[in-house]
Amino acid sequence: MEKINIDLNSPIGIFDSGLGGLTVLKSLVKILPNESFIYFGDTAHLPYGNKSVDTITKYSNNILKFFNNNQTKAVVIACNTASSLTYNILQKKYTVPLFDVVSPSVEFSIQESQTKKIGVIGTTNTINSKAYSKYFNKENKDFIIFEKDCPLFVPIIEEGWSNTQIAKLIAQKYLGVFKNKNIDTLILGCTHYPIMAKTIKSVLSPNIKLVFSGETVGNKLFNYLNKNKLCAKANKNPTIKFYVSDFPQKFEKLGRQFFGEKLNKVQSISFD
Amino acid sequence: MEKINIDLNSPIGIFDSGLGGLTVLKSLVKILPNESFIYFGDTAHLPYGNKSVDTITKYSNNILKFFNNNQTKAVVIACNTASSLTYNILQKKYTVPLFDVVSPSVEFSIQESQTKKIGVIGTTNTINSKAYSKYFNKENKDFIIFEKDCPLFVPIIEEGWSNTQIAKLIAQKYLGVFKNKNIDTLILGCTHYPIMAKTIKSVLSPNIKLVFSGETVGNKLFNYLNKNKLCAKANKNPTIKFYVSDFPQKFEKLGRQFFGEKLNKVQSISFD
Repeated sequence: MEKINIDLNSPIGIFDSGLGGLTVLKSLVKILPNESFIYFGDTAHLPYGNKSVDTITKYSNNILKFFNNNQTKAVVIACNTASSLTYNILQKKYTVPLFDVVSPSVEFSIQESQTKKIGVIGTTNTINSKAYSKYFNKENKDFIIFEKDCPLFVPIIEEGWSNTQIAKLIAQKYLGVFKNKNIDTLILGCTHYPIMAKTIKSVLSPNIKLVFSGETVGNKLFNYLNKNKLCAKANKNPTIKFYVSDFPQKFEKLGRQFFGEKLNKVQSISFD
Repeated sequence: MEKINIDLNSPIGIFDSGLGGLTVLKSLVKILPNESFIYFGDTAHLPYGNKSVDTITKYSNNILKFFNNNQTKAVVIACNTASSLTYNILQKKYTVPLFDVVSPSVEFSIQESQTKKIGVIGTTNTINSKAYSKYFNKENKDFIIFEKDCPLFVPIIEEGWSNTQIAKLIAQKYLGVFKNKNIDTLILGCTHYPIMAKTIKSVLSPNIKLVFSGETVGNKLFNYLNKNKLCAKANKNPTIKFYVSDFPQKFEKLGRQFFGEKLNKVQSISFD
């Protein structure tokens, strides 16, 4: 454990196995407009979902070291798999403040839900891992959690078909399981899903509120920086740097859709 | 290069990165009912599509060695990516007769097509690699090839939705590009696609013939064994053994849909 002198204008690191974390970055930039960011998409090793804890820990370790070398003042694990598998392991190993994407959405939902019945959607691996229901259970046992995997959402989003009739039919088929469950809150437990939020919303009862992990982790990070007087100074020009471990072309092509604007120069870097 | 004494009842090896090759195995069993088979699904390393030639060659080498240790008399590369990237490399290295899934479908289509205009569908990686059009061009320059990637077909098949209205809408959207192209032949350039052949057929002009790589490689293999007097004796009980490199449960669960019947005992084996 080493003590680091933190420069307030140091960047915040954020990583994901690929593109999805860019929706989280988009929220962070909105909530923390003065901060600089370094985004790392581990595209050489995606998907993380079907790999072992040891393997994901190895990948995450390399990324954390890279962030440390870049003097990040905080790190966001913008990937549901890495959040649920490696957050505790990394937290013991690094002094940099770490933020995952599972716990902020659970904590927010516990505060917001009136019916105490909450839905969670994600990839098959995230849902099978029960990362969300386990964390709910740890925080508050009064809530009933309904989890549903939606494996076609990621490919349909990556195809650019989020707002088509096909996407709506698929959403209807998956989200029909929440009918008559009296949920008032639905956590989007995959960083791709905000892209098709409109379609998801359109097939649900209007009283169901969607929870976006980019917003919940962004608010948690904002509170942390604020409380610890670690916010960047307002007069600095914030920067955003993008790194990937493979195929920067595809990342650049699809990245705009996820981040909401063109990605400036994506650099490829390998730790293998 | 080593000379091996071949037992006519030795098994035929067949491998793929995952499940898809089981549709090829299904065809092989039909065409060669007296033969024994060893199937290897490299599930620990799937998908092959986004990996480099060196990496795929390393994986394929390990599988070929495994097959050699099991005295296979022939090997089928039932994976479009491995077929196009490693067939030539492996052929120089091993004495066992090797069969890929690209060339037999191209050769068959050249014989069958009257309009000399042929469609090929596959994953984005297969289509981007231009493996089919390159091989057509090498064999006969008179043909015009139209290639289209259909990235949602694999996830929709794995979801078990091949014969739904959603699958039909997706197929219509993708295959609309073949309208007015005067193709009379469509190669299913991905081993998953035979599962949704009925849906694919339903959105095409009735005069378009589908080409299944399981059938074309099966016939090529049959001719080879026959010509070289390598066919198994009819009185032997043929066996089929299944191996995977990771997660045998998922493979067993989905395998039935691909192979057409329940898979007997799937064993997990690692070369890492």
